[in-house]
Amino acid sequence: MTTPLFRGIVPPVLTPLTAGGEVDVASLDRLVRHLVERGVHGVFVLGSTGEVAYLTDAQRDLVVRTVVRAADGRVPVLGGAIDLTTARVIEQARALVEAGVDAVVATPPVYAINDTDEIERHLRAVAAAVDVPLFAYDIPVRVRTKLPVDLLVRLGADGVLAGVKDSSGDDVAFRRLVAANAAAGSPLALFTGHEVVVDGMLLLGADGVVPGLGNVDPAGYVRLWDLAQAGKWDDARREQERLAALFEIVFQAQGRSGDAAGVGAFKVAVQRQGLIDTAALSFPLEALDGDVADRIEEITREAGLLHG
Amino acid sequence: MTTPLFRGIVPPVLTPLTAGGEVDVASLDRLVRHLVERGVHGVFVLGSTGEVAYLTDAQRDLVVRTVVRAADGRVPVLGGAIDLTTARVIEQARALVEAGVDAVVATPPVYAINDTDEIERHLRAVAAAVDVPLFAYDIPVRVRTKLPVDLLVRLGADGVLAGVKDSSGDDVAFRRLVAANAAAGSPLALFTGHEVVVDGMLLLGADGVVPGLGNVDPAGYVRLWDLAQAGKWDDARREQERLAALFEIVFQAQGRSGDAAGVGAFKVAVQRQGLIDTAALSFPLEALDGDVADRIEEITREAGLLHG
Amino acid sequence: MTTPLFRGIVPPVLTPLTAGGEVDVASLDRLVRHLVERGVHGVFVLGSTGEVAYLTDAQRDLVVRTVVRAADGRVPVLGGAIDLTTARVIEQARALVEAGVDAVVATPPVYAINDTDEIERHLRAVAAAVDVPLFAYDIPVRVRTKLPVDLLVRLGADGVLAGVKDSSGDDVAFRRLVAANAAAGSPLALFTGHEVVVDGMLLLGADGVVPGLGNVDPAGYVRLWDLAQAGKWDDARREQERLAALFEIVFQAQGRSGDAAGVGAFKVAVQRQGLIDTAALSFPLEALDGDVADRIEEITREAGLLHG
Amino acid sequence: MTTPLFRGIVPPVLTPLTAGGEVDVASLDRLVRHLVERGVHGVFVLGSTGEVAYLTDAQRDLVVRTVVRAADGRVPVLGGAIDLTTARVIEQARALVEAGVDAVVATPPVYAINDTDEIERHLRAVAAAVDVPLFAYDIPVRVRTKLPVDLLVRLGADGVLAGVKDSSGDDVAFRRLVAANAAAGSPLALFTGHEVVVDGMLLLGADGVVPGLGNVDPAGYVRLWDLAQAGKWDDARREQERLAALFEIVFQAQGRSGDAAGVGAFKVAVQRQGLIDTAALSFPLEALDGDVADRIEEITREAGLLHG
Repeated sequence: MTTPLFRGIVPPVLTPLTAGGEVDVASLDRLVRHLVERGVHGVFVLGSTGEVAYLTDAQRDLVVRTVVRAADGRVPVLGGAIDLTTARVIEQARALVEAGVDAVVATPPVYAINDTDEIERHLRAVAAAVDVPLFAYDIPVRVRTKLPVDLLVRLGADGVLAGVKDSSGDDVAFRRLVAANAAAGSPLALFTGHEVVVDGMLLLGADGVVPGLGNVDPAGYVRLWDLAQAGKWDDARREQERLAALFEIVFQAQGRSGDAAGVGAFKVAVQRQGLIDTAALSFPLEALDGDVADRIEEITREAGLLHG
Repeated sequence: MTTPLFRGIVPPVLTPLTAGGEVDVASLDRLVRHLVERGVHGVFVLGSTGEVAYLTDAQRDLVVRTVVRAADGRVPVLGGAIDLTTARVIEQARALVEAGVDAVVATPPVYAINDTDEIERHLRAVAAAVDVPLFAYDIPVRVRTKLPVDLLVRLGADGVLAGVKDSSGDDVAFRRLVAANAAAGSPLALFTGHEVVVDGMLLLGADGVVPGLGNVDPAGYVRLWDLAQAGKWDDARREQERLAALFEIVFQAQGRSGDAAGVGAFKVAVQRQGLIDTAALSFPLEALDGDVADRIEEITREAGLLHG
Repeated sequence: MTTPLFRGIVPPVLTPLTAGGEVDVASLDRLVRHLVERGVHGVFVLGSTGEVAYLTDAQRDLVVRTVVRAADGRVPVLGGAIDLTTARVIEQARALVEAGVDAVVATPPVYAINDTDEIERHLRAVAAAVDVPLFAYDIPVRVRTKLPVDLLVRLGADGVLAGVKDSSGDDVAFRRLVAANAAAGSPLALFTGHEVVVDGMLLLGADGVVPGLGNVDPAGYVRLWDLAQAGKWDDARREQERLAALFEIVFQAQGRSGDAAGVGAFKVAVQRQGLIDTAALSFPLEALDGDVADRIEEITREAGLLHG
Repeated sequence: MTTPLFRGIVPPVLTPLTAGGEVDVASLDRLVRHLVERGVHGVFVLGSTGEVAYLTDAQRDLVVRTVVRAADGRVPVLGGAIDLTTARVIEQARALVEAGVDAVVATPPVYAINDTDEIERHLRAVAAAVDVPLFAYDIPVRVRTKLPVDLLVRLGADGVLAGVKDSSGDDVAFRRLVAANAAAGSPLALFTGHEVVVDGMLLLGADGVVPGLGNVDPAGYVRLWDLAQAGKWDDARREQERLAALFEIVFQAQGRSGDAAGVGAFKVAVQRQGLIDTAALSFPLEALDGDVADRIEEITREAGLLHG
C-alpha cells in the first residue's frame, strides 16, 4: 500500500469536449500539464466533475490514457470506476489499471438498493480485482447512500480501502471519520470534495482535497495547502476566502441542473483562461453562455485569473 | 405505433440464477412459458425485479434472448435499457431491439443530476435511436427524479413515448397523469408497478400493471384484470385482497436491503413452486433462507399456490 | 367507542377570515351549514386545510365553537389538536372536547425527533386524557414521521385509537393498513386525505375521506360516496374524474408555497360561490388573486359550480 | 443593536427535571452558575437541547426566569421562541423579553409549508414585536426548511436579524453565509451548532458556537475558543479532538430516538458530574440508563471530567 502518495490537492479533471461532443484530447492534455505545472499533488480522472456519467467506454478510455500520458508520472493519477453492477465496476477498474492509473475510486452500487453488508461485499470484490489502491467515493447526492464511518475504517484496517473521497457534505461525519481513522492507525487517506471549506477540513485533519474549482485555480489551492502545512492558518483562511469568492461562479446559472451549472461554470472559467478550446458539455447538457458566461468570466477576472 | 398491444398484466420477469451466479436459462425459459400459459398479456425483461442492476452486458443479452424465444410471439416483450449515459442507454436499447423486444423501457439519466429539459433531450434521443415504442420508467426511489406529468404527456403527444411504467408510489400524480393523457387523446399506455393497489389503479384508469408479485401468482393477476375489465369491481377487490396478503412475503426479511427482501422473496416463492431451480440472488446480494424462507413458503401456501 | 359514527365524506373545514385576518364567524357558519345541507357525513375542524398552523388559541376556540354550533348535532365534528408537546396537545384536546367535538385528531409530536415507542406513549397519553375517540393524523410531509401500520393497528386493538386520517400519500401502506385492520376485527375507521383517488381508495376499503376539495364541491363527494356504497364503481370513477379536473385549481399558483397554493385555491373557489366573504389567508400567507384567481374561478365554473 | 455582545461559547442549556418530570429549579440554577463560572460567553435557553419541544408554557417561563436569575447579568441570555403560528411565536418572544432575555431565537414556521417570502414576513413580524435582537434558528432537520443565505444577509442588513444559529449541517452554505455577511458589513453574528467542527468553523469565520456538549465540558469549549482567538490553531484542533472523542457519548444509545440519544447522553454526563440531580427526560422520552449510561460515564471519565 502506498498511501503516503495520496495527499494534497488532487483536482477532479474536467473532460474538455469539442463542439461536436467528442473528447478534445489536445485541450485535455494542455489542462493536465497546466495543473501539474501549477503544483497539484495528483489528478482524479473520470469523476463527477469529469462528466463520467455522460461518457461511453471508448471515451472513458481515451480520457484516462490522455491524462496518464500528460501526467507522465510526475503526480499520481486516480481514476473513477463509476458504473452499475459490481462486475462492470470491476471491468472499469481493470481498464483504468491497464491504462496506467495509480489508484481506483469506486462508489457504492448505483441504482441498486443495498444495505451495508452488500456494499461491503461490493467494495471488497472491487479491491480484490485490481492491484492498485482503492478509494471509496462517498457521494450520497448521486448514489443515495451515506457510507458509515465504521464500515470505512474497518475496510481501511483490513487493507481493502486506501482512502475515501468524501463528497457527502456531512462535516460532522467527516470529523468522526478522521478521529476513527486516527484511532485505527490511519490506514485511510481522507479527501474532502468540498472546495470552500478546505481550510477548516485541513485543520481538522483531512489528508487531501479534490476540488472541482482546482481546475480553475490550481495555484490557489496549492498555496492554500502549503499555508496549511506550514501551520499558517490565518493566511490559509484568507486564501480560502479568495477561492470561496471564485466559487460563486457555480451559482450564476440559476434554474439550470446541478451538473450544467457546476461543471458548466468550471469549463467556462477554464476556457476563458485559454486552457481548453470550448466550454461544451456532454449531451444532454447544454453549455453555459450569454450573460451567465459573462458573469462567470467577470468573477474569474476579479479573482486575478484573467489578463487583458 | 402499436400502443394497443401494450395493456394488461405484464410481469417484470425474475432472472433465475444458478448457485454459481450465472443466468439459469432453463429456469428462465420455464418461468416465462409458465407466465404466458397463465394468461399474462406481456412480459417485461431486465427491470429492477429482473436484477438488471446486477447483470453484465453478456448476461443481459442472454436473458433477453431467452425471454424472447420463450415468449415466442405469443405476448409482447418489453425490455429495460437501464444504464448510465444516453449513449450507453441507446446501445442497450439497440441490443434489446436486435434481440427481438417489442418495446424499450428507459429511465431518466442515472447518477447524473439533470433538469427536466435535459431529461427530455435524453428520452428523445433514445426514442430516435430505435424503431420500437419507448416507455418511460418513473422510479424516483432509484433514480432520484420524479418525471413530471406535463413532460410525459407532451412526449406522448409528440410520438416520443408510447407509455409510462409508474413505480413512483405517487397515486395523486398518477391520477393526474391519467387525466392529462385522456385529455390529450390517450397517446400513452399507463402502467402501474404497485402490486397491491391494482384494483384501485385499474378503476381510475391504468392501462396495465407490472407486478413483481405476478411472477408468483400470474393467474391471480389475470383474474383481477379480467374482473376489472368486466366491471366486477367488488370481485376484483377480493382478488386483490388475496394478492395483497400474498405480498406480505416481501416484508419477512426484516433488516435486509430492499432488493434482497423484495426480489429475494419473489424468488423463494417461485422456487418453492418448482418453477425455478434456486432462489439465488446476484452478487453482492445473498439469497433469503432459513426461517425467513420458511415464512415466505407458508404465506405462499396459504395463498393456495403450493400443493403438498 | 362509537366508531360507526365516523365514516363517509368528512371535509376539513376551511377557516374563513376577514380582510383584517380575524375569523369570519358568519362565513364559517354559512360554510358549515352548506356542507351539512349538501350531505356530508361529518366535518373536521382545525386541520391543515383549516389553517390550524396559523391560528392562536383564542381563534382555534372561536372556530371550533362556531363549527359545533353550525353542525348542531346533525353530523359529528372531529377536531384537530395540533401542537408541540404532549401536554399542550392534551390541553388542545380538552379544549376541543369542552367545545363539543365528537372526536379528536392528533399527530405524532411536531419538531421533536422521536421513535415509535415515544410516539406510542404520546398517543396513549392523549387518548387517556379525553373521553371522546382519538384519531391519529398521519401526515409526514408536515411532521416528518410515517406512522407504521403495526403501531396503528395495535393502538386500535387496544382501544387507544378509533381511527386514522391518512395524508401520507403512500397508497401501498394504506392498503396494508386496510388489510391489517380487517384482520384485527376492524377497530379503526380509516380515512384518506387524498381527494383525487377516492374511488380507488373506497374500492380498496377506506371507511371515509377527508377531502379539502370537499369544501368546494361537497355534493360531488357525497355522490361519489353514494355511488361507491351502491357498488356503481364505473359511475363513481366518472364522478371522481370530474372532481379530479376540479382539483387542478390547486396547481394554478405556480411558485407559491404549498399552503398558499392549496388552501388559497380552495378559498377562492368557495368565495366565488358566495359562501364565504373573502379569500383571505392567515399571516404570513397572502391570498391568491389576479390571473391565478381568475383561472381558479374558470375551472370552478367548468365544474358546474358557478352560475352566471 | 448590541451584536458585539453575542459571540463566543453559548451553550444551549439543558433543562434538568425531577424524577416526576417537573423542572428541577435547583439543578438548573446550579448548572447555569457552573457554566458561567467556567467562562462561557452566554447561554441559550429553551433550544432543542433544552427540550423546548416538550415543555408547557408555564415550564418554559420557569426555566427562563431561573436561567436569567442564575446568569445574573454576567453573560447574555438568548431564549428560544419555538412554536406554531407567528402570533404564538410573538407571544413566546414577548414572554422571554418580559423574563429578561437579551435576545430571542426563532425558527421559520413549524408544521406550515411556507416559501421564502412567507418566512421573511414571519421573521420580520417577530423582530418588530420585541425590542431585543432576533436570531434566526436554521434547523432543517426539525423544521424541514433550509434558510437561504440571501434572505439571512438581507434581513441582517435591514436590521431585522442580529444573528443566525446554524444547525443545518451544511458547511458549504455556512461558508457562503460568512462571506456574504462580511461583504454586507457583518450585520449578523454567526453561530454554529455543530460541536465537533468548531475549530474549522471558527477558522472560517464563525462568531460563536452553541454546543450542546458545552453543558458537559464548558471549560473545554472556552479553551478552544481562546486558542482560536489567539490564532493557536493547532492547539485548538487538539482541544477539539478531545471534545470530539467526548461527543461519542451521543452515539451510545443505538436504536433510540435522536432526542433521547443526544439530550439523554448530555444529561447522564452532567448528572454523573454531580451538577444536576437526575438524568430524567421529558415525556414521552425515557432516560438513558444501564449499560448505555455506564458507557457514557466511562467516556466522560476518559475525558477527565469525573473524579474518583
